Amino acid sequence: MSLPDDLQSECVLIRDPSAFRSFDLEAAAARRLDSLLKPPGSLGRLEEIARALYVIQGSAPLRVRPARVYVICADHGVVDQGVSSQPREVTAVLMRGFLADGLGINCLCRSVNAQALLVDAGCAAFMPEHPRLIRANIAPGTADMSLGPAMSVEQCLDALRLGVKLAAQAHQDGVRALGTGEIGIGNSTAATALFCACLGFAPEEICGMGAGCPPGGIEHKSAVIRKALQRNEGAVRDEDPLAALSAFGGFEIIALAGLIIGAAARSIPVMVDGFISTAAYVAACRLAPAARFYCFFSHTSAEAGHVKILRGLGVKPFFELGMRLGEGTGAALGFTLLDGAASVFNDMLTLDGAGVVIPNS
Amino acid sequence: MSLPDDLQSECVLIRDPSAFRSFDLEAAAARRLDSLLKPPGSLGRLEEIARALYVIQGSAPLRVRPARVYVICADHGVVDQGVSSQPREVTAVLMRGFLADGLGINCLCRSVNAQALLVDAGCAAFMPEHPRLIRANIAPGTADMSLGPAMSVEQCLDALRLGVKLAAQAHQDGVRALGTGEIGIGNSTAATALFCACLGFAPEEICGMGAGCPPGGIEHKSAVIRKALQRNEGAVRDEDPLAALSAFGGFEIIALAGLIIGAAARSIPVMVDGFISTAAYVAACRLAPAARFYCFFSHTSAEAGHVKILRGLGVKPFFELGMRLGEGTGAALGFTLLDGAASVFNDMLTLDGAGVVIPNS
Repeated sequence: MSLPDDLQSECVLIRDPSAFRSFDLEAAAARRLDSLLKPPGSLGRLEEIARALYVIQGSAPLRVRPARVYVICADHGVVDQGVSSQPREVTAVLMRGFLADGLGINCLCRSVNAQALLVDAGCAAFMPEHPRLIRANIAPGTADMSLGPAMSVEQCLDALRLGVKLAAQAHQDGVRALGTGEIGIGNSTAATALFCACLGFAPEEICGMGAGCPPGGIEHKSAVIRKALQRNEGAVRDEDPLAALSAFGGFEIIALAGLIIGAAARSIPVMVDGFISTAAYVAACRLAPAARFYCFFSHTSAEAGHVKILRGLGVKPFFELGMRLGEGTGAALGFTLLDGAASVFNDMLTLDGAGVVIPNS
Repeated sequence: MSLPDDLQSECVLIRDPSAFRSFDLEAAAARRLDSLLKPPGSLGRLEEIARALYVIQGSAPLRVRPARVYVICADHGVVDQGVSSQPREVTAVLMRGFLADGLGINCLCRSVNAQALLVDAGCAAFMPEHPRLIRANIAPGTADMSLGPAMSVEQCLDALRLGVKLAAQAHQDGVRALGTGEIGIGNSTAATALFCACLGFAPEEICGMGAGCPPGGIEHKSAVIRKALQRNEGAVRDEDPLAALSAFGGFEIIALAGLIIGAAARSIPVMVDGFISTAAYVAACRLAPAARFYCFFSHTSAEAGHVKILRGLGVKPFFELGMRLGEGTGAALGFTLLDGAASVFNDMLTLDGAGVVIPNS
């Protein structure tokens, strides 16, 4: 099945920076950076970020604030197979923890002065209204992917549309950088299956602990993922990306893929968090390859397999801090590098301005 | 020569966390972190930072703001040997750039909301008064270390005292975290010599480009450092750390060593910047080994040799961003991790508070 028109037009809106004009922008950004009062290239990856932001934004000064993390939440049917040491109910516990301002992501967003909003894309428990909760429950959790597809293609499209809508809302609110966050017991199982289906890994190569595994649980979790890949073999073989995304889910991962597409379509840079968010990135790029030019990778998760997956994708995150909490915690920290890159690009004195010529080194 | 009483008493003031009470503090911090609404250890190095901060501070809540970077500046006699492609005058150019708010360190301190103050410890050019300049010029640059000691032992003590005084001033101003910054054409040569003298490296093993080398310059720079090590052989062999510090300098490096000692004596954590600042750390630890417990390493510099030196010291910086600008730019970015660690430690909801038991993973 091809994408319906509304989603297809989002994908078409994404400017591909390999086009001519973007090449000009890249060169202009490099000239600006080399004109600053410092040895050329001496700010390393901050300069790389500034160049990418300039290509995305198309003009100076670079603006990356306000920044917002959407923490998208959902439950997973595959939890019935005992893939997590956490019961499904913990998803809702964590969501309530968020609304009480007490999760890691709340603390880190406060710490870096970013907004954090919670989204119920498919939690099994009923979540009452709250000013910082966006209620968009597609279903009370996915179906068990080890028995069949996690969701219908219609649900998959709804999840993509939800993500696009969140990006559009952010755009309307003047948000200049987005971060991907998620909560969902079982979602490292779904993400691992997606990596296997889309990138060709075997479950054993990349399967890790997630938020917690029972003893001997990684072997069991790998076996469940292998079963899910077999059950959904048609979807994996199929050229149609929607089939693979629907087969494994989850709602939060697919909604984050929609968020990435919607952000890219609106020239909003996206700070990708860790393991689960990388699955959303992979899903987004299956549908809209040019979305990758709008994504920054914040950190390498301590979740086993993330290193291999990132290497396979040819990306190198900024941080390697041994974090594996998810929620968007790495993305929140990553915003500080966007700030730094923008500040240097916008505000540093030029060599001319300082009246000196510093020879190339 | 042993340290005079005033400096000796600073060193004695530094609490060594290998003492009993600190062990208690470490355990209490670990208990607190494990009680939070997250899988144990899932915030990785943020948890490591929080534990270290709690041991330093001795109580909750952790406070790391306001944060301040001292950018200490000096010139180097060894520049006469053509070790840098930058003329000595660039030190003063950069200092004026700082006072015009236009350096990388100004931008990054604004970006992370930290204070930045400039210190003239030994610039060759005259620097007029300015509200953000601390004038404490010990001499208009060091002597050429390839011909003899860079400074007298009296000057070395003055530089250490300057650093202690800056730490004391920060303490009086309520500063809760310090960053090390420096400007000084030629100071990568001085730092490299110090590493060789204190850690036993050969110049060729760790010598890099600094802010810029003429073509073929690294070999020449290594040769100059080798000559300086020979000229000051007595100082290198000598048990007396002051002899080695005086032999190679520079004033900004020794003052930063004093800053680290003074900060540690006042239980202020120090975010160490890159290559040059690491030399100050080594110098500080020669005089006061317990100072190391108060130091955090922000980033691995792109300067060749830094990786080896850090490995030799057994420390692993937080970031590896290909930066090699100095000025304290890495330290400024590092403050954001102190913020994050403190925020998580202080403000996250506990498992008890959320009414759940999350099993260990």
